[in-house]
Amino acid sequence: MGEHTVTSFDEDLGHIDRLIRDMGDLAGAMVSASIQALVQSDNALGQRVVSDDAIMDARQRELDERAITLIAKRQPMAQDLRAVVGAIRMAGDLERIGDLAKNIAKRVSAVGQSATPRDLAHSIEAMSGMVLDQVREVVDHYVSRRPEELQALRAADEKIDVKYTAVFRELLTYMMEDPRNITACTHLLFCAKNLERIGDHVTNIAENAYYVMTGKQLPLNRPKQDETSMTAPAA
Amino acid sequence: MGEHTVTSFDEDLGHIDRLIRDMGDLAGAMVSASIQALVQSDNALGQRVVSDDAIMDARQRELDERAITLIAKRQPMAQDLRAVVGAIRMAGDLERIGDLAKNIAKRVSAVGQSATPRDLAHSIEAMSGMVLDQVREVVDHYVSRRPEELQALRAADEKIDVKYTAVFRELLTYMMEDPRNITACTHLLFCAKNLERIGDHVTNIAENAYYVMTGKQLPLNRPKQDETSMTAPAA
Repeated sequence: MGEHTVTSFDEDLGHIDRLIRDMGDLAGAMVSASIQALVQSDNALGQRVVSDDAIMDARQRELDERAITLIAKRQPMAQDLRAVVGAIRMAGDLERIGDLAKNIAKRVSAVGQSATPRDLAHSIEAMSGMVLDQVREVVDHYVSRRPEELQALRAADEKIDVKYTAVFRELLTYMMEDPRNITACTHLLFCAKNLERIGDHVTNIAENAYYVMTGKQLPLNRPKQDETSMTAPAA
Repeated sequence: MGEHTVTSFDEDLGHIDRLIRDMGDLAGAMVSASIQALVQSDNALGQRVVSDDAIMDARQRELDERAITLIAKRQPMAQDLRAVVGAIRMAGDLERIGDLAKNIAKRVSAVGQSATPRDLAHSIEAMSGMVLDQVREVVDHYVSRRPEELQALRAADEKIDVKYTAVFRELLTYMMEDPRNITACTHLLFCAKNLERIGDHVTNIAENAYYVMTGKQLPLNRPKQDETSMTAPAA
């Protein structure tokens, strides 16, 4: 990283893309481990997710510094500038995904062993599976420069929102059935909400990636996310 | 914003600072209105906060574009580059604060009229008052370049976290007392959590502002935020 570098702009950008890929891999691993820790009450695994977050933060700082140096050094115009700024934004969303996974992991001990009924664990695992697929795919499509796939991906976020609303209702029902479930269920509520928010960050990444590749905004055909603000519990 | 501008770097940065100030004012107004709407069940006011968020997003885009153009055009070194990148990050946190206020506002109708007992409304208003002071002060200290004040500000975030834990317990208690409170209280739980997260964004802004002004990191003497992941309800 001396002053007199002989790399081309594309090589510099390629390096930034590799950092995006690394951050995406780490984000996926953190989401997956956090839900596994939650469902299996595995405190040690939860702790690992918490410490992974420091690695994620360091990666983001590295990417930011490289990107800003690249802009200052090369003064890229239009499309190239868009690519670098897009990478900074995507890294920001990936870092937030790691943060949300950490937040889930921190709730493992509060939820405890006994509190998660089988059905509920299934619902949350199913939701996290959907979210995880999204995280992996969005990074793949970006790195492989596949703009048309990103559109389908954003539409899939609606399914996550529907699933979240179902989990939300399910949790309220458990709380109403037995007040002893309330503490654990409120923590699970935050976990489910965090998964839903991870889906929103994937949508942000898809939008940024599409803009980087095409210079256009993804068509706005997406209904609003979290519908639980209108939701009463299942009867 | 033609190619041949005669403004100085400091003028350009001054313009960016004014945008930060505007975003800070808007963020404060949104937080204040969202809590007022929540406590008074004022759906129309809640709706205004939701639409204010679009203004916030537009301001952030404007700031980002100006900042990136400034970097590309002037290739600032060290301290100047730090100031511009710091402004981009602070704008990102202010936009997130607006987003969290919007999220509170969207819950106004779900919480409904009858559900908020007087005491609880008081607690949430008290918490939001603390958060609001923080939002206003951090922007003031940044714009007036007062690094030493930022340190005190960050310490004050601990008080918000303590307050959040108290509100969390209070909400769990209401839910356990009467299952009919559960739906409204879960929405209030998310509102309180959002206030706590606004406090975290203020901390991020304080850290960035301090770094912009001094080139140093704020000393790390801050204990961890949300302690509710360890919390059982009040007896």
